[in-house]
Amino acid sequence: MNYRAVETAGEYVARLETGADWRGEIEALADEVEADAAWFTALGAVQDAELWFYDQTTCEYEPIAFDEPLEVASCVGNVSWLENERFAHTHAVLSGPDGTAYAGHLNEATVWAGEVYMRVFEDGLERAYDETTELDLWL
Amino acid sequence: MNYRAVETAGEYVARLETGADWRGEIEALADEVEADAAWFTALGAVQDAELWFYDQTTCEYEPIAFDEPLEVASCVGNVSWLENERFAHTHAVLSGPDGTAYAGHLNEATVWAGEVYMRVFEDGLERAYDETTELDLWL
Amino acid sequence: MNYRAVETAGEYVARLETGADWRGEIEALADEVEADAAWFTALGAVQDAELWFYDQTTCEYEPIAFDEPLEVASCVGNVSWLENERFAHTHAVLSGPDGTAYAGHLNEATVWAGEVYMRVFEDGLERAYDETTELDLWL
Repeated sequence: MNYRAVETAGEYVARLETGADWRGEIEALADEVEADAAWFTALGAVQDAELWFYDQTTCEYEPIAFDEPLEVASCVGNVSWLENERFAHTHAVLSGPDGTAYAGHLNEATVWAGEVYMRVFEDGLERAYDETTELDLWL
Repeated sequence: MNYRAVETAGEYVARLETGADWRGEIEALADEVEADAAWFTALGAVQDAELWFYDQTTCEYEPIAFDEPLEVASCVGNVSWLENERFAHTHAVLSGPDGTAYAGHLNEATVWAGEVYMRVFEDGLERAYDETTELDLWL
Repeated sequence: MNYRAVETAGEYVARLETGADWRGEIEALADEVEADAAWFTALGAVQDAELWFYDQTTCEYEPIAFDEPLEVASCVGNVSWLENERFAHTHAVLSGPDGTAYAGHLNEATVWAGEVYMRVFEDGLERAYDETTELDLWL
Protein backbone atom coordinates (compact mmCIF):
# COMPACT_ATOMS: atom_id res chain seq x y z
CA MET A 1 0.00 0.00 0.00
CA ASN A 2 1.06 3.54 -0.75
CA TYR A 3 0.18 6.15 1.80
CA ARG A 4 1.28 9.56 2.96
CA ALA A 5 0.74 11.63 6.08
CA VAL A 6 -0.90 14.92 5.16
CA GLU A 7 -1.36 18.22 6.95
CA THR A 8 -4.39 20.38 6.44
CA ALA A 9 -3.77 23.88 5.08
CA GLY A 10 -7.40 24.96 5.16
CA GLU A 11 -11.00 23.84 5.42
CA TYR A 12 -13.91 25.20 3.40
CA VAL A 13 -17.65 24.90 3.04
CA ALA A 14 -19.20 25.86 -0.26
CA ARG A 15 -22.59 26.14 -1.88
CA LEU A 16 -22.56 25.13 -5.53
CA GLU A 17 -24.26 27.45 -8.01
CA THR A 18 -27.62 26.37 -9.43
CA GLY A 19 -27.19 25.69 -13.15
CA ALA A 20 -23.42 25.22 -13.06
CA ASP A 21 -21.58 21.92 -13.50
CA TRP A 22 -21.17 19.95 -10.24
CA ARG A 23 -17.59 18.83 -10.80
CA GLY A 24 -16.64 22.12 -12.45
CA GLU A 25 -17.82 23.97 -9.35
CA ILE A 26 -15.67 21.78 -7.11
CA GLU A 27 -12.68 22.38 -9.37
CA ALA A 28 -13.45 26.13 -9.36
CA LEU A 29 -13.37 26.06 -5.55
CA ALA A 30 -10.05 24.19 -5.67
CA ASP A 31 -8.66 26.77 -8.11
CA GLU A 32 -9.94 29.66 -5.98
CA VAL A 33 -8.24 28.40 -2.81
CA GLU A 34 -5.20 27.14 -4.75
CA ALA A 35 -5.57 23.55 -3.58
CA ASP A 36 -2.80 21.27 -4.80
CA ALA A 37 -4.50 18.37 -3.05
CA ALA A 38 -7.82 18.16 -1.25
CA TRP A 39 -10.50 15.77 -0.02
CA PHE A 40 -14.23 16.49 -0.09
CA THR A 41 -17.66 15.16 0.73
CA ALA A 42 -20.85 16.72 -0.59
CA LEU A 43 -24.62 16.39 -0.90
CA GLY A 44 -27.41 18.08 -2.82
CA ALA A 45 -29.42 17.62 -5.99
CA VAL A 46 -28.81 17.85 -9.73
CA GLN A 47 -30.95 18.53 -12.80
CA ASP A 48 -29.24 15.83 -14.88
CA ALA A 49 -26.05 13.77 -14.65
CA GLU A 50 -23.52 11.69 -16.53
CA LEU A 51 -21.98 8.86 -14.53
CA TRP A 52 -19.06 6.81 -15.83
CA PHE A 53 -18.43 3.12 -15.23
CA TYR A 54 -14.87 1.87 -15.73
CA ASP A 55 -14.75 -1.31 -17.79
CA GLN A 56 -11.86 -3.25 -16.21
CA THR A 57 -11.49 -5.43 -19.34
CA THR A 58 -11.30 -2.75 -22.03
CA CYS A 59 -9.89 -0.21 -19.54
CA GLU A 60 -12.24 2.45 -20.81
CA TYR A 61 -14.94 4.51 -19.12
CA GLU A 62 -18.49 3.95 -20.34
CA PRO A 63 -20.97 6.81 -19.85
CA ILE A 64 -24.43 6.47 -18.29
CA ALA A 65 -26.63 9.49 -18.94
CA PHE A 66 -29.53 10.69 -16.78
CA ASP A 67 -31.71 13.47 -18.16
CA GLU A 68 -33.88 14.02 -15.10
CA PRO A 69 -33.62 15.60 -11.63
CA LEU A 70 -31.86 13.45 -9.03
CA GLU A 71 -30.83 13.81 -5.41
CA VAL A 72 -27.10 13.61 -4.67
CA ALA A 73 -27.32 11.28 -1.69
CA SER A 74 -23.55 10.97 -1.36
CA CYS A 75 -20.53 12.49 -3.02
CA VAL A 76 -16.95 11.65 -2.05
CA GLY A 77 -13.84 12.69 -3.90
CA ASN A 78 -10.47 14.36 -4.01
CA VAL A 79 -8.56 17.02 -5.90
CA SER A 80 -5.15 16.46 -7.43
CA TRP A 81 -3.14 17.61 -10.43
CA LEU A 82 -3.78 15.82 -13.72
CA GLU A 83 -2.09 17.03 -16.90
CA ASN A 84 -1.46 20.50 -15.43
CA GLU A 85 -5.05 21.02 -14.31
CA ARG A 86 -6.79 20.53 -11.00
CA PHE A 87 -8.96 17.45 -11.33
CA ALA A 88 -11.76 16.59 -8.90
CA HIS A 89 -12.06 12.81 -8.87
CA THR A 90 -15.72 12.57 -7.94
CA HIS A 91 -17.87 9.56 -7.08
CA ALA A 92 -21.54 10.00 -6.37
CA VAL A 93 -24.72 8.21 -5.41
CA LEU A 94 -27.81 9.70 -7.06
CA SER A 95 -31.48 8.89 -6.50
CA GLY A 96 -34.83 9.32 -8.20
CA PRO A 97 -38.40 10.04 -7.06
CA ASP A 98 -39.01 6.47 -5.83
CA GLY A 99 -35.70 6.35 -3.97
CA THR A 100 -33.95 4.15 -6.52
CA ALA A 101 -30.20 4.72 -6.30
CA TYR A 102 -27.71 5.07 -9.16
CA ALA A 103 -24.02 5.43 -8.58
CA GLY A 104 -20.60 5.72 -10.13
CA HIS A 105 -17.84 8.08 -11.21
CA LEU A 106 -19.47 11.48 -11.73
CA ASN A 107 -18.29 13.13 -14.93
CA GLU A 108 -20.79 15.95 -15.12
CA ALA A 109 -24.11 17.07 -13.70
CA THR A 110 -26.07 20.31 -13.62
CA VAL A 111 -26.33 21.60 -10.05
CA TRP A 112 -29.76 22.20 -8.52
CA ALA A 113 -28.29 22.74 -5.07
CA GLY A 114 -25.01 21.49 -3.65
CA GLU A 115 -23.22 21.69 -0.30
CA VAL A 116 -19.54 20.76 -0.10
CA TYR A 117 -16.98 20.38 2.66
CA MET A 118 -13.38 20.43 1.43
CA ARG A 119 -10.09 19.96 3.26
CA VAL A 120 -7.04 21.28 1.45
CA PHE A 121 -3.70 19.61 2.17
CA GLU A 122 -0.27 21.26 2.40
CA ASP A 123 1.44 18.89 -0.02
CA GLY A 124 0.17 18.37 -3.53
CA LEU A 125 -0.95 15.13 -5.17
CA GLU A 126 -0.32 14.48 -8.86
CA ARG A 127 -1.83 11.73 -10.96
CA ALA A 128 0.31 9.60 -13.25
CA TYR A 129 -0.51 6.75 -15.59
CA ASP A 130 -0.70 3.33 -13.92
CA GLU A 131 0.07 0.43 -16.26
CA THR A 132 -1.95 -2.20 -14.38
CA THR A 133 -5.28 -0.40 -14.33
CA GLU A 134 -4.62 2.10 -17.17
CA LEU A 135 -5.95 4.75 -14.77
CA ASP A 136 -4.25 7.97 -13.68
CA LEU A 137 -3.46 7.39 -10.00
CA TRP A 138 -1.63 9.31 -7.33
CA LEU A 139 1.02 8.02 -4.84
CA MET B 1 -19.85 29.96 -6.14
CA ASN B 2 -20.26 30.88 -2.52
CA TYR B 3 -17.68 29.51 -0.13
CA ARG B 4 -16.19 30.24 3.23
CA ALA B 5 -13.04 29.17 5.04
CA VAL B 6 -13.96 27.47 8.29
CA GLU B 7 -12.03 26.59 11.43
CA THR B 8 -12.80 23.52 13.47
CA ALA B 9 -13.83 24.10 17.08
CA GLY B 10 -14.16 20.42 17.97
CA GLU B 11 -14.45 16.89 16.63
CA TYR B 12 -16.75 14.19 17.97
CA VAL B 13 -17.63 10.56 17.49
CA ALA B 14 -21.04 9.37 18.62
CA ARG B 15 -23.07 6.22 18.83
CA LEU B 16 -26.74 6.78 18.09
CA GLU B 17 -29.26 5.28 20.48
CA THR B 18 -31.19 2.20 19.35
CA GLY B 19 -34.86 3.13 18.95
CA ALA B 20 -34.28 6.89 18.69
CA ASP B 21 -34.70 8.97 15.52
CA TRP B 22 -31.55 9.08 13.35
CA ARG B 23 -31.70 12.76 12.46
CA GLY B 24 -32.99 13.70 15.90
CA GLU B 25 -29.96 12.04 17.46
CA ILE B 26 -27.59 14.01 15.24
CA GLU B 27 -29.40 17.23 16.14
CA ALA B 28 -29.25 16.24 19.83
CA LEU B 29 -25.48 15.83 19.50
CA ALA B 30 -25.27 19.24 17.81
CA ASP B 31 -27.34 20.77 20.64
CA GLU B 32 -25.22 19.04 23.28
CA VAL B 33 -21.94 20.40 21.89
CA GLU B 34 -23.55 23.74 20.94
CA ALA B 35 -22.66 23.46 17.28
CA ASP B 36 -23.65 26.49 15.22
CA ALA B 37 -22.32 24.75 12.12
CA ALA B 38 -20.99 21.24 11.61
CA TRP B 39 -20.28 18.58 9.00
CA PHE B 40 -20.79 14.87 9.53
CA THR B 41 -20.53 11.45 7.97
CA ALA B 42 -22.16 8.34 9.45
CA LEU B 43 -22.99 4.68 8.95
CA GLY B 44 -25.14 2.06 10.63
CA ALA B 45 -28.57 0.51 10.28
CA VAL B 46 -32.18 1.57 10.82
CA GLN B 47 -35.45 -0.20 11.59
CA ASP B 48 -37.47 1.94 9.15
CA ALA B 49 -36.95 5.17 7.25
CA GLU B 50 -38.59 8.05 5.44
CA LEU B 51 -36.60 9.50 2.56
CA TRP B 52 -37.63 12.67 0.78
CA PHE B 53 -37.19 13.46 -2.92
CA TYR B 54 -37.29 17.11 -3.94
CA ASP B 55 -39.52 17.69 -6.97
CA GLN B 56 -37.69 20.46 -8.86
CA THR B 57 -40.87 21.35 -10.78
CA THR B 58 -43.34 21.72 -7.93
CA CYS B 59 -40.53 22.65 -5.50
CA GLU B 60 -41.94 20.31 -2.87
CA TYR B 61 -40.50 17.30 -1.08
CA GLU B 62 -42.19 13.98 -1.75
CA PRO B 63 -41.85 11.30 0.96
CA ILE B 64 -40.79 7.70 0.32
CA ALA B 65 -41.54 5.42 3.28
CA PHE B 66 -39.70 2.20 4.17
CA ASP B 67 -41.18 0.04 6.90
CA GLU B 68 -38.39 -2.51 7.11
CA PRO B 69 -34.83 -2.80 8.46
CA LEU B 70 -32.18 -1.26 6.23
CA GLU B 71 -28.43 -0.72 6.38
CA VAL B 72 -27.22 2.87 6.32
CA ALA B 73 -24.45 2.42 3.78
CA SER B 74 -23.64 6.11 3.65
CA CYS B 75 -24.79 9.24 5.43
CA VAL B 76 -23.41 12.72 4.71
CA GLY B 77 -24.76 15.97 6.04
CA ASN B 78 -24.32 19.22 7.90
CA VAL B 79 -25.76 21.17 10.76
CA SER B 80 -26.87 24.79 10.51
CA TRP B 81 -29.51 27.08 11.96
CA LEU B 82 -32.96 26.99 10.37
CA GLU B 83 -35.79 28.99 11.89
CA ASN B 84 -34.05 29.19 15.28
CA GLU B 85 -33.38 25.48 15.54
CA ARG B 86 -30.36 23.36 14.73
CA PHE B 87 -31.17 21.44 11.56
CA ALA B 88 -29.20 18.42 10.39
CA HIS B 89 -29.43 18.36 6.60
CA THR B 90 -29.01 14.63 6.11
CA HIS B 91 -28.64 12.57 2.95
CA ALA B 92 -28.38 8.81 3.15
CA VAL B 93 -27.97 5.65 1.13
CA LEU B 94 -29.93 2.72 2.57
CA SER B 95 -29.90 -0.93 1.52
CA GLY B 96 -31.99 -4.06 1.90
CA PRO B 97 -31.29 -7.78 2.34
CA ASP B 98 -30.38 -8.32 -1.33
CA GLY B 99 -28.10 -5.28 -1.41
CA THR B 100 -30.54 -3.08 -3.33
CA ALA B 101 -29.79 0.55 -2.58
CA TYR B 102 -32.28 3.35 -1.91
CA ALA B 103 -31.20 6.93 -1.38
CA GLY B 104 -32.25 10.50 -0.81
CA HIS B 105 -32.82 13.21 1.76
CA LEU B 106 -33.32 11.47 5.11
CA ASN B 107 -36.23 12.94 7.03
CA GLU B 108 -36.57 10.31 9.74
CA ALA B 109 -35.53 6.78 10.57
CA THR B 110 -35.51 4.63 13.69
CA VAL B 111 -31.93 3.84 14.70
CA TRP B 112 -30.83 0.22 15.01
CA ALA B 113 -27.19 1.20 15.38
CA GLY B 114 -25.42 4.33 14.22
CA GLU B 115 -21.87 5.67 14.27
CA VAL B 116 -21.23 9.34 13.51
CA TYR B 117 -18.19 11.54 13.07
CA MET B 118 -18.93 15.26 13.39
CA ARG B 119 -16.71 18.32 12.98
CA VAL B 120 -18.02 21.48 14.57
CA PHE B 121 -16.98 24.79 13.03
CA GLU B 122 -16.19 28.06 14.83
CA ASP B 123 -18.51 30.21 12.73
CA GLY B 124 -22.20 29.43 12.40
CA LEU B 125 -24.17 28.74 9.24
CA GLU B 126 -27.77 29.86 8.89
CA ARG B 127 -30.25 28.83 6.22
CA ALA B 128 -32.34 31.36 4.35
CA TYR B 129 -34.95 31.02 1.63
CA ASP B 130 -33.54 30.81 -1.90
CA GLU B 131 -35.94 32.04 -4.58
CA THR B 132 -34.52 29.97 -7.43
CA THR B 133 -34.79 26.55 -5.80
CA GLU B 134 -37.35 27.41 -3.08
CA LEU B 135 -34.99 25.64 -0.68
CA ASP B 136 -33.47 26.97 2.53
CA LEU B 137 -29.77 27.33 1.73
CA TRP B 138 -26.77 28.71 3.55
CA LEU B 139 -24.05 31.09 2.22
CA MET C 1 -26.67 9.24 23.10
CA ASN C 2 -23.09 8.31 23.70
CA TYR C 3 -20.47 10.64 22.31
CA ARG C 4 -16.91 11.66 22.89
CA ALA C 5 -14.76 14.62 21.86
CA VAL C 6 -11.78 13.39 19.89
CA GLU C 7 -8.47 14.93 18.88
CA THR C 8 -6.76 14.10 15.64
CA ALA C 9 -3.28 12.58 15.91
CA GLY C 10 -2.67 12.36 12.17
CA GLU C 11 -4.27 12.46 8.73
CA TYR C 12 -3.41 10.18 5.83
CA VAL C 13 -4.22 9.60 2.21
CA ALA C 14 -3.62 6.15 0.77
CA ARG C 15 -3.89 4.31 -2.49
CA LEU C 16 -5.08 0.74 -2.07
CA GLU C 17 -3.13 -1.97 -3.88
CA THR C 18 -4.72 -3.54 -6.96
CA GLY C 19 -5.52 -7.19 -6.19
CA ALA C 20 -5.49 -6.81 -2.40
CA ASP C 21 -8.54 -6.95 -0.12
CA TRP C 22 -10.26 -3.56 0.29
CA ARG C 23 -10.94 -3.81 4.02
CA GLY C 24 -7.64 -5.59 4.65
CA GLU C 25 -5.79 -2.69 3.05
CA ILE C 26 -7.56 -0.18 5.27
CA GLU C 27 -6.70 -2.30 8.32
CA ALA C 28 -3.09 -2.55 7.09
CA LEU C 29 -2.94 1.24 6.91
CA ALA C 30 -4.37 1.46 10.43
CA ASP C 31 -1.75 -1.03 11.64
CA GLU C 32 1.03 0.83 9.85
CA VAL C 33 0.17 4.15 11.47
CA GLU C 34 -0.76 2.48 14.78
CA ALA C 35 -4.29 3.85 14.79
CA ASP C 36 -6.27 2.95 17.91
CA ALA C 37 -9.26 4.78 16.47
CA ALA C 38 -9.82 6.37 13.08
CA TRP C 39 -12.47 7.57 10.66
CA PHE C 40 -12.24 7.23 6.89
CA THR C 41 -13.97 7.90 3.60
CA ALA C 42 -12.92 6.28 0.34
CA LEU C 43 -13.76 5.75 -3.32
CA GLY C 44 -12.55 3.57 -6.17
CA ALA C 45 -13.44 0.31 -7.87
CA VAL C 46 -13.32 -3.40 -7.04
CA GLN C 47 -13.11 -6.62 -9.01
CA ASP C 48 -15.65 -8.43 -6.82
CA ALA C 49 -17.25 -7.88 -3.44
CA GLU C 50 -19.09 -9.45 -0.52
CA LEU C 51 -21.58 -7.20 1.23
CA TRP C 52 -23.28 -8.18 4.46
CA PHE C 53 -26.82 -7.32 5.52
CA TYR C 54 -27.62 -7.52 9.22
CA ASP C 55 -30.88 -9.36 9.91
CA GLN C 56 -32.32 -7.49 12.90
CA THR C 57 -34.59 -10.43 13.77
CA THR C 58 -32.06 -13.27 13.81
CA CYS C 59 -29.23 -10.86 14.70
CA GLU C 60 -26.98 -12.44 12.11
CA TYR C 61 -25.20 -11.07 9.07
CA GLU C 62 -26.30 -12.47 5.70
CA PRO C 63 -23.76 -12.31 2.85
CA ILE C 64 -24.49 -10.95 -0.63
CA ALA C 65 -21.80 -11.93 -3.15
CA PHE C 66 -20.88 -10.03 -6.33
CA ASP C 67 -18.49 -11.70 -8.74
CA GLU C 68 -18.07 -8.82 -11.16
CA PRO C 69 -16.29 -5.45 -11.36
CA LEU C 70 -18.05 -2.63 -9.52
CA GLU C 71 -17.36 1.01 -8.81
CA VAL C 72 -17.03 2.01 -5.16
CA ALA C 73 -19.22 5.09 -5.29
CA SER C 74 -19.00 5.68 -1.55
CA CYS C 75 -17.19 4.14 1.37
CA VAL C 76 -17.50 5.39 4.96
CA GLY C 77 -16.15 3.68 8.04
CA ASN C 78 -14.07 3.68 11.16
CA VAL C 79 -11.28 1.77 12.83
CA SER C 80 -11.46 0.47 16.39
CA TRP C 81 -10.22 -2.46 18.44
CA LEU C 82 -12.25 -5.67 18.26
CA GLU C 83 -11.00 -8.79 20.00
CA ASN C 84 -7.42 -7.51 20.06
CA GLU C 85 -7.29 -6.65 16.38
CA ARG C 86 -7.83 -3.43 14.49
CA PHE C 87 -11.19 -3.71 12.76
CA ALA C 88 -12.29 -1.43 9.93
CA HIS C 89 -16.06 -1.18 10.12
CA THR C 90 -16.73 -0.45 6.47
CA HIS C 91 -19.94 0.43 4.67
CA ALA C 92 -19.95 0.89 0.92
CA VAL C 93 -22.09 1.75 -2.07
CA LEU C 94 -21.12 -0.18 -5.19
CA SER C 95 -22.38 0.19 -8.75
CA GLY C 96 -22.49 -1.72 -11.99
CA PRO C 97 -22.20 -0.85 -15.70
CA ASP C 98 -25.74 0.55 -15.94
CA GLY C 99 -25.32 2.62 -12.78
CA THR C 100 -27.40 0.31 -10.59
CA ALA C 101 -26.33 0.74 -6.97
CA TYR C 102 -25.80 -1.99 -4.35
CA ALA C 103 -24.91 -1.20 -0.78
CA GLY C 104 -24.28 -2.54 2.69
CA HIS C 105 -21.63 -3.58 5.18
CA LEU C 106 -18.49 -4.40 3.18
CA ASN C 107 -16.88 -7.61 4.35
CA GLU C 108 -14.43 -8.14 1.54
CA ALA C 109 -13.68 -7.00 -2.00
CA THR C 110 -10.73 -7.25 -4.35
CA VAL C 111 -9.31 -3.79 -5.03
CA TRP C 112 -9.09 -2.53 -8.60
CA ALA C 113 -8.18 0.98 -7.46
CA GLY C 114 -8.89 2.68 -4.17
CA GLU C 115 -8.29 6.11 -2.66
CA VAL C 116 -8.71 6.61 1.08
CA TYR C 117 -8.62 9.54 3.46
CA MET C 118 -8.16 8.55 7.11
CA ARG C 119 -8.09 10.60 10.30
CA VAL C 120 -6.47 8.92 13.26
CA PHE C 121 -7.65 9.93 16.74
CA GLU C 122 -5.55 10.30 19.90
CA ASP C 123 -7.80 8.12 22.07
CA GLY C 124 -8.68 4.59 21.11
CA LEU C 125 -12.11 3.07 20.55
CA GLU C 126 -12.86 -0.52 21.51
CA ARG C 127 -15.89 -2.56 20.53
CA ALA C 128 -17.84 -4.56 23.08
CA TYR C 129 -20.90 -6.76 22.80
CA ASP C 130 -24.21 -4.90 22.93
CA GLU C 131 -27.11 -7.01 24.23
CA THR C 132 -29.89 -5.11 22.44
CA THR C 133 -28.53 -5.38 18.90
CA GLU C 134 -26.13 -8.31 19.42
CA LEU C 135 -23.54 -6.17 17.62
CA ASP C 136 -20.08 -5.17 18.79
CA LEU C 137 -20.36 -1.42 19.39
CA TRP C 138 -18.07 1.24 20.78
CA LEU C 139 -18.85 3.96 23.38
